[in-house]
Amino acid sequence: MPAPPPGEVLVKVLRAGICNTDLELVAGYYPYCGILGHEFVGCVETGVDSLIGRRVVGEINASCGKCSICSMDHPGHCPHRTVLGIVNRNGAFAEYLSLPAENLHVVPDVVSTDAATFTEPLAAALQIPKQVKVGSATRALVVGDGKLGLLVAQTLHLSRCQVVAIGRHAGKLEILSHRGIEISMSNDFSGKGFDVAVECTGNQEGFAIARQSLRPQGTLVMKSTYAGKLTFDASSFVVDEITLVGSRCGPFTSALELLHRNEANVESLIHERYSLVDGIHAFERARASGVLKVLLEMD
Amino acid sequence: MPAPPPGEVLVKVLRAGICNTDLELVAGYYPYCGILGHEFVGCVETGVDSLIGRRVVGEINASCGKCSICSMDHPGHCPHRTVLGIVNRNGAFAEYLSLPAENLHVVPDVVSTDAATFTEPLAAALQIPKQVKVGSATRALVVGDGKLGLLVAQTLHLSRCQVVAIGRHAGKLEILSHRGIEISMSNDFSGKGFDVAVECTGNQEGFAIARQSLRPQGTLVMKSTYAGKLTFDASSFVVDEITLVGSRCGPFTSALELLHRNEANVESLIHERYSLVDGIHAFERARASGVLKVLLEMD
Repeated sequence: MPAPPPGEVLVKVLRAGICNTDLELVAGYYPYCGILGHEFVGCVETGVDSLIGRRVVGEINASCGKCSICSMDHPGHCPHRTVLGIVNRNGAFAEYLSLPAENLHVVPDVVSTDAATFTEPLAAALQIPKQVKVGSATRALVVGDGKLGLLVAQTLHLSRCQVVAIGRHAGKLEILSHRGIEISMSNDFSGKGFDVAVECTGNQEGFAIARQSLRPQGTLVMKSTYAGKLTFDASSFVVDEITLVGSRCGPFTSALELLHRNEANVESLIHERYSLVDGIHAFERARASGVLKVLLEMD
Repeated sequence: MPAPPPGEVLVKVLRAGICNTDLELVAGYYPYCGILGHEFVGCVETGVDSLIGRRVVGEINASCGKCSICSMDHPGHCPHRTVLGIVNRNGAFAEYLSLPAENLHVVPDVVSTDAATFTEPLAAALQIPKQVKVGSATRALVVGDGKLGLLVAQTLHLSRCQVVAIGRHAGKLEILSHRGIEISMSNDFSGKGFDVAVECTGNQEGFAIARQSLRPQGTLVMKSTYAGKLTFDASSFVVDEITLVGSRCGPFTSALELLHRNEANVESLIHERYSLVDGIHAFERARASGVLKVLLEMD
């Protein structure tokens, strides 16, 4: 049972989602030791009176609030931060967790607990339009039909971009075509002149496909957890004046608004459910090819 | 003797500068066969009456003017373009060259022919503030004290950035310290939290120094000719939300204005002069460590 320090809140976890970052952490991507899990919905037990009993989701970066980065209004990049289930802070694959009160957002009653579990990755997808100017004239390629790719394609579509989403799994891509998004299983988009390409595969091949699809002065967004180094043709980046943008956590408020308005299709991404005691099997399942979101249920 | 097609102008070359790209082309960086040279000042001989007899410099990209990229107002990125001394167009290390009339800019009388030879690389340096928002609050690191690095440091300083320029040659860096720019011969700027770092070395080590110097959400500008591939830690780019910007040719008008106002110190970058017939020796000299701009004189 966590003992929340002053300013933090004890949350009983109701549901949590397994993310590719969790799988990479188990594979040794980053030297974290502790409880995994950073996508969750919980119920506040103690800490702040106005929150007790409410369903909440939580931003994962707990910053110091004092350093120069925090004072520049980039608390998510605080060098002293802990990160739920990733850096020096026990995560959500547990019965209880502790987070600073200011990290929590109350889930609107009309949003199901299942849907709210997607708040964190949906917010991450919504970081892209915060970093890159997009609109109805923007032709955007989304590379990868995993969990994050499907959310990114939907949020860019909601930003009125002309989206093409590519991947290897017809069944996954169908979730997008049902939303009116163009899909393709080709992996050759060389010279197609996209304005923006979002790399959601986390591998060198996806990076190359994204790069080759861009017009001169186009933007390549990196939106994955990469386990190793990437190699790129630096000269062609200069000659074509390509911009590469690393993109991580995003705005929870906007994500909850999308879920409130039921504009993002997240529940069809749920592949299977396991109870917390079956967590090892849940991880094995989440790692299998073609599997989308695996949830852990604590309630 | 070039025979200019309709719309092009015959230019007698007066002076030309050897650029690192020329050295890389000789080393096989790009499969170009033809006369090298893209930094020049010349005198118009035939083509457009109003230009005849005038001293001119010339933008190096000759675009088709008809394709989708040209119509998007990116003629410098036209896929059908020729590039003076680089792609399918004989260059300036010759007595005469031919360029489209619209590529030419008249050199103001008060600007010396020597200084005007730097218009092209100075314009390239001025491309950075066109791509990246900079100002008096911007802390910028310039990595590399070669010809381009010295111009980039000066132009960022003129854009009121707080510039630190680093390199290996005290004598070169002195050109900058005389302009009031902070210099350093250290190569460890890890964690120094620069907002912008401009990579002007063209090698992996310079790239690593630039990357490590940045704050989260900082911008790394690539401003060199890279002969090979670069490797980078993709995950750290995502976690720190770094932006990487490839940067190439820039605005000639702004460069000529800087030279007109005598705000950029370019003539102290001239290391040696050779006549065109001694071009081979000029190239050998330009390749030597510590040597800045080598000029070829045709007049």
